Amino acid sequence: MDPQLTAYLDAARPRQVDELMAWLRIPSISTLAAHKDDVMAAAVWLRDHLQSIGLEHVTLIDSGTQPMVYADWLHAGPDKPTVLIYGHFDVQPVDPLDLWQSPPFAPEVRGDNLYARGASDDKGQTFVHIKAVEALLRTTGRLPVNVKFLIEGEEESGSRTISAYVPQHAAQLAADAVVVSDTHIIAPDQPVILYGLRGIWVAEITVTGPAHDLHSGNFGGTIHNANQALAEILAALHDRDGRVTVPGFYDQVRVLSPEERAVLAQVPYGEAQVLADSGAPALYGEPEFTPVERIGARPTLEINGMWGGFIEPGFKTVIPSQAHAKISCRLVPYQDPARIEELVTAYLHQLTPPTVTIDVRGRRGAPAFLTPYDAPPIQAAARAYRQVFGNDPVFTLEGGGIPIVNVFQSVLNAPIVLMGFGLPDDNLHAPNEKFHLPCFYKGIRTSVAFLHEMAQL
Amino acid sequence: MDPQLTAYLDAARPRQVDELMAWLRIPSISTLAAHKDDVMAAAVWLRDHLQSIGLEHVTLIDSGTQPMVYADWLHAGPDKPTVLIYGHFDVQPVDPLDLWQSPPFAPEVRGDNLYARGASDDKGQTFVHIKAVEALLRTTGRLPVNVKFLIEGEEESGSRTISAYVPQHAAQLAADAVVVSDTHIIAPDQPVILYGLRGIWVAEITVTGPAHDLHSGNFGGTIHNANQALAEILAALHDRDGRVTVPGFYDQVRVLSPEERAVLAQVPYGEAQVLADSGAPALYGEPEFTPVERIGARPTLEINGMWGGFIEPGFKTVIPSQAHAKISCRLVPYQDPARIEELVTAYLHQLTPPTVTIDVRGRRGAPAFLTPYDAPPIQAAARAYRQVFGNDPVFTLEGGGIPIVNVFQSVLNAPIVLMGFGLPDDNLHAPNEKFHLPCFYKGIRTSVAFLHEMAQL
Repeated sequence: MDPQLTAYLDAARPRQVDELMAWLRIPSISTLAAHKDDVMAAAVWLRDHLQSIGLEHVTLIDSGTQPMVYADWLHAGPDKPTVLIYGHFDVQPVDPLDLWQSPPFAPEVRGDNLYARGASDDKGQTFVHIKAVEALLRTTGRLPVNVKFLIEGEEESGSRTISAYVPQHAAQLAADAVVVSDTHIIAPDQPVILYGLRGIWVAEITVTGPAHDLHSGNFGGTIHNANQALAEILAALHDRDGRVTVPGFYDQVRVLSPEERAVLAQVPYGEAQVLADSGAPALYGEPEFTPVERIGARPTLEINGMWGGFIEPGFKTVIPSQAHAKISCRLVPYQDPARIEELVTAYLHQLTPPTVTIDVRGRRGAPAFLTPYDAPPIQAAARAYRQVFGNDPVFTLEGGGIPIVNVFQSVLNAPIVLMGFGLPDDNLHAPNEKFHLPCFYKGIRTSVAFLHEMAQL
Repeated sequence: MDPQLTAYLDAARPRQVDELMAWLRIPSISTLAAHKDDVMAAAVWLRDHLQSIGLEHVTLIDSGTQPMVYADWLHAGPDKPTVLIYGHFDVQPVDPLDLWQSPPFAPEVRGDNLYARGASDDKGQTFVHIKAVEALLRTTGRLPVNVKFLIEGEEESGSRTISAYVPQHAAQLAADAVVVSDTHIIAPDQPVILYGLRGIWVAEITVTGPAHDLHSGNFGGTIHNANQALAEILAALHDRDGRVTVPGFYDQVRVLSPEERAVLAQVPYGEAQVLADSGAPALYGEPEFTPVERIGARPTLEINGMWGGFIEPGFKTVIPSQAHAKISCRLVPYQDPARIEELVTAYLHQLTPPTVTIDVRGRRGAPAFLTPYDAPPIQAAARAYRQVFGNDPVFTLEGGGIPIVNVFQSVLNAPIVLMGFGLPDDNLHAPNEKFHLPCFYKGIRTSVAFLHEMAQL
């Protein structure tokens, strides 16, 4: 790497962290209506920041739902490729708040880590590319390729706005590669490129027994408790080995070839690591698949939330009228979210005894994503990783989804480069989310190297 | 009944309801620490009221937990019996608040009913006896028997204070009968005397899977979701017919004789009434027992509260670290709460897979209550009911418990007269609790008649 750029980046570290901390202080939780203004504030901050580093056509796109920010630099020349960089500045809710060691929106550096909600997912990883572009512009006055940014504020709540925007602005967004950094690598010295992501389907369930809450003394023994009925229904959704029991659930699932299983077996992420990262007392799940296969290539059904009856301190001897659950399925190629909604809904109704009624509301779905990993931009990213991390990346499938990547793939017809800079223990969606600062600094250099590699294609 | 007293009672109705409404405005929820001052305020109100109607030795007993109020009138003469009247002025929590048609602590008369938390359980039913004593004192200047009141503020949260107080003050409280009105009759013209009450055991359960909440994309398929594990454990506590599956749970249960089953079969409370009162789509529970038997003579295990993961509006695709439940067992003679705690705790641990851990905390227990219904004070109550309601009471077992009755029975060695004035649809422990005002007025006359009947013994 250019010595001037290296010197610049070494000197810039404290300022880069300070700027990221300013962005992280904005509690831009897109899933909670009360934080709508905060999501907008994070968009405004980003717009102003992109403007300040020399990008052009900087635009805050506000369609009334959640905002997005677009910016570009298109002076590399028409013979140079164009890279579209995607990220998101909205974040997950923060409960349970009492488990955070420092407040989620008061970013704090402890040791090598920066703690805050969004530090890794995805303000921090988005900032990697912003700081790479800034470094190139400040030290050389130009970029080796044309660059476009499209950063959204609705990733954690369904990406509806951007999903409608991209097809309507295909020409504006045209690119030779789309870069997404919203995933994790295996270790600080072991980068990863993902060639597949799981999709998702989420739903809310309400079980209703009696018309109103009842005194358990006066009615206990004659009425089916809604909490109990819900527990009985939910308990029937998995067999003892962790397989989902919904009839037809696995019918569309892509079968792994022996060759692909061999590739995935190279990923150094096994049972011991899952246990270490999760703190669980034992592993769970389909015994005929490895952890990497279960996370990347097998669908799930999770109970993300469950509640009913009296849940405050103290006691109330009530038979609740209603009990509720929020469930979600992680989907793999080639499962269709609409078909999964039909199957799960039908099975939940089938499991419901005549003593209660059930209401199942599918809320949103997105299919899984799969891309060929021999595409030139993906190989360019692999070379960039190798230069900065000193190791070849491993190629693997990942369990989380990024709703917009399917839209990018189908509308822009460009390879999607999923290069992450998070670590498995970054506590995404959980208390004490953090970003490993050495990954932040190496990420910026990798992004610079990637833009140079893209210029050679 | 004495015509002067009848005229007095007819004229006094609006004032009696106004006074009860004043007491009901105090949100004396003993199970919630935030309402501690309100429980005290309800005790102070009661103390002042008992003083104002001419009772003596009126004392607010404050031992630092929840207060009680004692008062007496002992001038009937040493040859006359003494009646101890028990009640409670603490009330249940009010959630879900949005289901109340009028605010729970803004009492409102609609039609024949007075709506408020505590209207029936138990301020209203306690007030029946206070107004009966007041009426006798105001119209005759005396009572036919010696009367003592002991009214507590901790019934809904375990009656610990009174349970310690009664054995230490056996001489002060000595009585020939203890009257408790904290139960319901079958219909406005069908009184009931209870000869048994269920006991209770309550516990809190926490299931812990991973050490912290996890992203369901990154870990889903490899980790046992705590909500799911809790649902699976709770679902295993009943068989498909509603029998509790805890080994040994029914071992100590009193077996009903054919004679007693015939007595209970006379109670006009069947499946249709349970469905009408509960609004449930179908009956539940042990098919080999009638609803009256299931409620009175069979133990239960209920999930009063259950929660885990993300339970706010919106979605969070989390694998929760912990899930929680509050459970309670209604116990029957001769089940021992300590033994039930052992059995349930052991079975919960046995049901827990190696993928999660469980913590079970028994919080309190009280045994069931059973009394012979041929005791003279109970027969006196039956005659009083007949005079006012025009029908003989039926004798039955009830499902709710009143923790202190066992203590009264063992310490005072006096028959416990369980004469209720509530109705089955009073919505105890639920939104829109109410007291049927004709029951209130008839209750006052029945209490007057009972004191006269006691004087004849």
